[in-house]
Amino acid sequence: MTQVLALSGGIGGARLALGLQHTLPPGELTVVVNTGDDFEHLGLSISPDIDTVLYTLSGQENPDRGWGRGGDSWHFMAEIERLGGERWFRLGDKELAVHIERTRRLNAGEKLSRITADFAGHFGILGKVVPMTNDMVRTMVVTEGEGTLDFQQYFVARRCEPVVKGMAYAGAADAQMPPVLQEVLTDPSLQAIVICPSNPWLSIAPMLEIPAWREALQEATVPVIAVSPLLNGHAVRGPATKIMSELGLEPSSASIAQFYGNLIDGFVLDRSEAHVAPEIGVATHVTATSMKTPADRQRLAGEVLEFAGSFRGVGV
Amino acid sequence: MTQVLALSGGIGGARLALGLQHTLPPGELTVVVNTGDDFEHLGLSISPDIDTVLYTLSGQENPDRGWGRGGDSWHFMAEIERLGGERWFRLGDKELAVHIERTRRLNAGEKLSRITADFAGHFGILGKVVPMTNDMVRTMVVTEGEGTLDFQQYFVARRCEPVVKGMAYAGAADAQMPPVLQEVLTDPSLQAIVICPSNPWLSIAPMLEIPAWREALQEATVPVIAVSPLLNGHAVRGPATKIMSELGLEPSSASIAQFYGNLIDGFVLDRSEAHVAPEIGVATHVTATSMKTPADRQRLAGEVLEFAGSFRGVGV
Repeated sequence: MTQVLALSGGIGGARLALGLQHTLPPGELTVVVNTGDDFEHLGLSISPDIDTVLYTLSGQENPDRGWGRGGDSWHFMAEIERLGGERWFRLGDKELAVHIERTRRLNAGEKLSRITADFAGHFGILGKVVPMTNDMVRTMVVTEGEGTLDFQQYFVARRCEPVVKGMAYAGAADAQMPPVLQEVLTDPSLQAIVICPSNPWLSIAPMLEIPAWREALQEATVPVIAVSPLLNGHAVRGPATKIMSELGLEPSSASIAQFYGNLIDGFVLDRSEAHVAPEIGVATHVTATSMKTPADRQRLAGEVLEFAGSFRGVGV
Repeated sequence: MTQVLALSGGIGGARLALGLQHTLPPGELTVVVNTGDDFEHLGLSISPDIDTVLYTLSGQENPDRGWGRGGDSWHFMAEIERLGGERWFRLGDKELAVHIERTRRLNAGEKLSRITADFAGHFGILGKVVPMTNDMVRTMVVTEGEGTLDFQQYFVARRCEPVVKGMAYAGAADAQMPPVLQEVLTDPSLQAIVICPSNPWLSIAPMLEIPAWREALQEATVPVIAVSPLLNGHAVRGPATKIMSELGLEPSSASIAQFYGNLIDGFVLDRSEAHVAPEIGVATHVTATSMKTPADRQRLAGEVLEFAGSFRGVGV
């Protein structure tokens, strides 16, 4: 038993999680997923990051877009447009099954963690996929000129164009951790906690703002390793460096390591960012972090686990 | 202005409504549709008869099945089955747009009549399509051995197999007529009311059990013409004669005319049923009522309107 807990947002984090899944023995990976981007749309409860992780770990992701299902069709969207319905957030025909069944079960009083576990099982995923909380946390983006936007309004409808002045994570202070995650965190076979290369402000911060999560990372007796999402001063995907600049931060992996501060024991960054390694206050591992191919993902996952293993016995 | 009001259930009624639409000047047809079969499924508000009428009047019906959209795809259903969701009622990908958008708007407090009118407009239908009521009426089937079943449980899940002891129309006694229908009924240009060849017990009775509807038909100053759904002692589709036998009625057009009683002024029946015409207590018109082709539908619609016209000035 060599259990690993990975914290993930959407596609960037999900790809490292997939590498970890291939590297670890079957069933030993638990991925805890950001739900700060969850929202209601057309009356459906949508959990974009959970779905991206489920699709990626079961080989059903859309490799081109970074969201949604691969090989999906758009008959529903064509019709909803024709009926005058909202079209700014696109829902594929296959995807709708997840949204409709999740909404039905949530409305019947089931917990998101239970529903997500069942979906993972139906998709043949052997490890655990768990929402960061069953409570409602909503990431809000405080913008210059457009006020405070819901995350999806900022991210999809406004295409990350407004200038970000700050973030808010509504509900996080009162949110609880699902019980199954407390079990994983206290399991003696847990070997490492990996913060995947997701956007720290958009995807990881919602978890860190939940008191139980911050505490769990602070008190972890296993190494906590973060992987930088930046390559050569840019995020592979998404607005990470745009947001960093707007928040007055140097868009480099050093700023990201600083954001995680004393919550992490080790930091993995890309060779293109090696020059900032000396500024980072924890142990670093410099390597190629691009995850374009399955081989890339597995090599990076292996290196992250080996790096985590190097802390063993040094009293993190 | 030669307005006609047609009362319809699903496909059988919708086909005559389509014939009437082609025969009348554009926009002069109002179809009032049974909502006793409406139900909630997977958290969605589904109105099967309204959808069948909308699809049929806009040329989008499935010609083979009698329900759903033509040329629909089933990606959603394949996925919902995979997720362990309910599969007994099949929802096509295109159809979902109507269900989801209707549900969203109902939950936002809009009236079903307003939503249906908008959908009809988006589908390019020039006449009016109106639910019989905006209130909840639910057709229930009292069976031998299986208790009282919701309509869709009886009709779809149990394939009309249980023996019917009686019907109940929950909510009908307290249901109101949508205001737009009161306007149509009192419009001086209204020429006729046509009860389409739908199943009297399943599709028309839910309207007749609404006090405002029964009163409207009783007090109508225009001819009320019913068209029998039976050909040669059988319904073209659906369990009409099975139910009639189980209720102890002779499965003939005479029993159907008797069911409508003094609500109707004239009755149209197929040549194959001509032998029962003498038993019918109102004026009859015997013709070919099969509606396999557009020519069939338009000829029958024309004859129904002409038959209705024959009552003009005779003080119905």
